[in-house]
Amino acid sequence: MTTTGKSATKNDVRPRLRIVSGRDIALGPGKVELLELLGSTGSIMEAARQMGMSYMRAWTLIRTMNQCFKEPVIRAVRGGSKGGGARLTKTGREALALYHKMNARCLHATKADWKRLKPLLRD
Amino acid sequence: MTTTGKSATKNDVRPRLRIVSGRDIALGPGKVELLELLGSTGSIMEAARQMGMSYMRAWTLIRTMNQCFKEPVIRAVRGGSKGGGARLTKTGREALALYHKMNARCLHATKADWKRLKPLLRD
Repeated sequence: MTTTGKSATKNDVRPRLRIVSGRDIALGPGKVELLELLGSTGSIMEAARQMGMSYMRAWTLIRTMNQCFKEPVIRAVRGGSKGGGARLTKTGREALALYHKMNARCLHATKADWKRLKPLLRD
Repeated sequence: MTTTGKSATKNDVRPRLRIVSGRDIALGPGKVELLELLGSTGSIMEAARQMGMSYMRAWTLIRTMNQCFKEPVIRAVRGGSKGGGARLTKTGREALALYHKMNARCLHATKADWKRLKPLLRD
């Protein structure tokens, strides 16, 4: 199964931070992408479509996030002609900004060790 | 990070770093756990059992890792009475150590922002 040619192989480190709240995942790469799309599109249906997930799946993720935080991260209106509107709350914007900062700091902090790990990988 | 708390709900941040090599995941939380168990048990069957995965699944992960690195990370002997022996190579030990260092540095670097994100979550 060796399908990777020289140009196709690219080595990279991806933080993929997970914020756990009890048994739930409050935030992770998928939920953060959903939050961003909800913020930019204002539509649950459109955000779900862009992520290749069902409307119901997006709702489940929103509900989990909202339950994990003291205040909702998304204010949503179910159904309607546009398939449900969504708006990031103040808490949602704060959580998103902090997650991105943590991501950036993680990448920066791991740079030196990544420089030592990378040469062990095939180019 | 210690996760043992009194209550069921406990908020935590988990780096879950992913090392990507082309289309493959060279290292991630699952593969790192497998590497550790292979190192400590010396047995593919036992490592697979402890992770609740099949022997074949463990083999697939080992093959992927070995293909991603210039030198194999695991030296394995397929089959046999003990269900396949396994030994971490020098590269494997180095990769594992660097991954853990990156993990620790990530946790340390995200601490300040995590202190601001945590109060937004339910206790």
